[in-house]
Amino acid sequence: MKSLTVIKIGGGVIDDTVALDGFLDRFAAVAEPKILVHGGGRAASEMSKKLGHETTMIDGRRITDAGTLKVAVMIYAGLINKTIVARLQKRGCNAIGISGADGNAIPAARRPSAPIDFGYVGDVDPAAINTALLGRLLDCGLTPVFCAITHDGGGGLLNTNADTIASSLAIAMSQEYAVRLVFCFEKHGVLCDSADERSIIAALEKTEYETLKAAGVIGGGMTAKLDNAFAALEQGVSEITITHASELGAESGTTIK
Amino acid sequence: MKSLTVIKIGGGVIDDTVALDGFLDRFAAVAEPKILVHGGGRAASEMSKKLGHETTMIDGRRITDAGTLKVAVMIYAGLINKTIVARLQKRGCNAIGISGADGNAIPAARRPSAPIDFGYVGDVDPAAINTALLGRLLDCGLTPVFCAITHDGGGGLLNTNADTIASSLAIAMSQEYAVRLVFCFEKHGVLCDSADERSIIAALEKTEYETLKAAGVIGGGMTAKLDNAFAALEQGVSEITITHASELGAESGTTIK
Repeated sequence: MKSLTVIKIGGGVIDDTVALDGFLDRFAAVAEPKILVHGGGRAASEMSKKLGHETTMIDGRRITDAGTLKVAVMIYAGLINKTIVARLQKRGCNAIGISGADGNAIPAARRPSAPIDFGYVGDVDPAAINTALLGRLLDCGLTPVFCAITHDGGGGLLNTNADTIASSLAIAMSQEYAVRLVFCFEKHGVLCDSADERSIIAALEKTEYETLKAAGVIGGGMTAKLDNAFAALEQGVSEITITHASELGAESGTTIK
Repeated sequence: MKSLTVIKIGGGVIDDTVALDGFLDRFAAVAEPKILVHGGGRAASEMSKKLGHETTMIDGRRITDAGTLKVAVMIYAGLINKTIVARLQKRGCNAIGISGADGNAIPAARRPSAPIDFGYVGDVDPAAINTALLGRLLDCGLTPVFCAITHDGGGGLLNTNADTIASSLAIAMSQEYAVRLVFCFEKHGVLCDSADERSIIAALEKTEYETLKAAGVIGGGMTAKLDNAFAALEQGVSEITITHASELGAESGTTIK
């Protein structure tokens, strides 16, 4: 079975030019084939603010109304995606920017409006991902770079969570490849003491995770990430690593397999 | 020799949702393989205005400074490109949005700063276009949709004239395909009486064009378009049509071959 690395990079790194360039150096050095999925960073909120567009929140969650979607498409699929692609080209990585609409790569379903209407938000079914297209692009020596925009097949674009895009891609591609999924973010891995950045759990198994979660050692946003990761593992992904963007390729962070 | 149609759509149609949808119906109906190149419309200038970004002009020509480039990338490669791709997907046309940076499709050289520094503007050499990539995408049944953004290979994005992108693509692809290039715009063709919209010249040859140009019958922006068209013809493009966006596929307009 061929191997494939799917790497997700979060917003924090995208907002920091120096950190982004360092990350892209490391990403370009990862053996092919590989896929990059990027989040949005602060640029979209800043642009909305500049345009005088208020962010609508319901129960503390952001609603993607028509104006928010427009800004997301401009910033994620336009500015951030093409900036990353051009910088990878400079590094000899033959990147190609892709949204879920391009080549019908990621069809999505608009989230049901009840109980909360989140607006133009798309939910992805890994089984619907166009793995044939991605296989062909990879076979051409291309490195797909995904923004977190999908489409509904009816002409509409949708905003989708970038972590979800990354894990859905990893699950879908597991049919043909041994997939390693790497989440790069602002922490160095899963910590067993949130006050100690060095207390990284190098390897985490499901039972251990459940124990640490029940004991409250692992909490907050990390549980959503890890629940997602274990679900991806159960759906065929070979290995998942959660690490700092500055340590991609350094065999550090927390690995789940 | 396989045939290929390269179609360029101007800004006027993009700004008009009804006209754009009608055009996309007709574009989707054009036999494959085909490539679409789109201009920018007013959205970029409107966005610059909203952001309080002044357009710099030198000798009546717009300068692409860093702020203008950023807006162009957001609007052309982001909003317009993905909107068109999603709407073509709805019509069963397997569109894939591409900037010149994606897959290194169109490398460009930043225009020399003397005598006028136009800023982040890229000039394209048709010989540098990645025809191998385009051939592979077309062979996969994909329809590339180009925005007029290119890259310098050094990590920088560049703004490029959409007519130039279209004719450069047509010239480059002529090595492997019999290419028909169609410029869709707001007029019904080349007119022999600018006051009479019905006075369309159905077929135009170089010698006749030179005569009409010398006599002042054809002038203004049309001569730039036609000089460009005849140059493309001399560089291998099989046939060039200049027509109204509402008449794509109707065998109307002005044809040069």
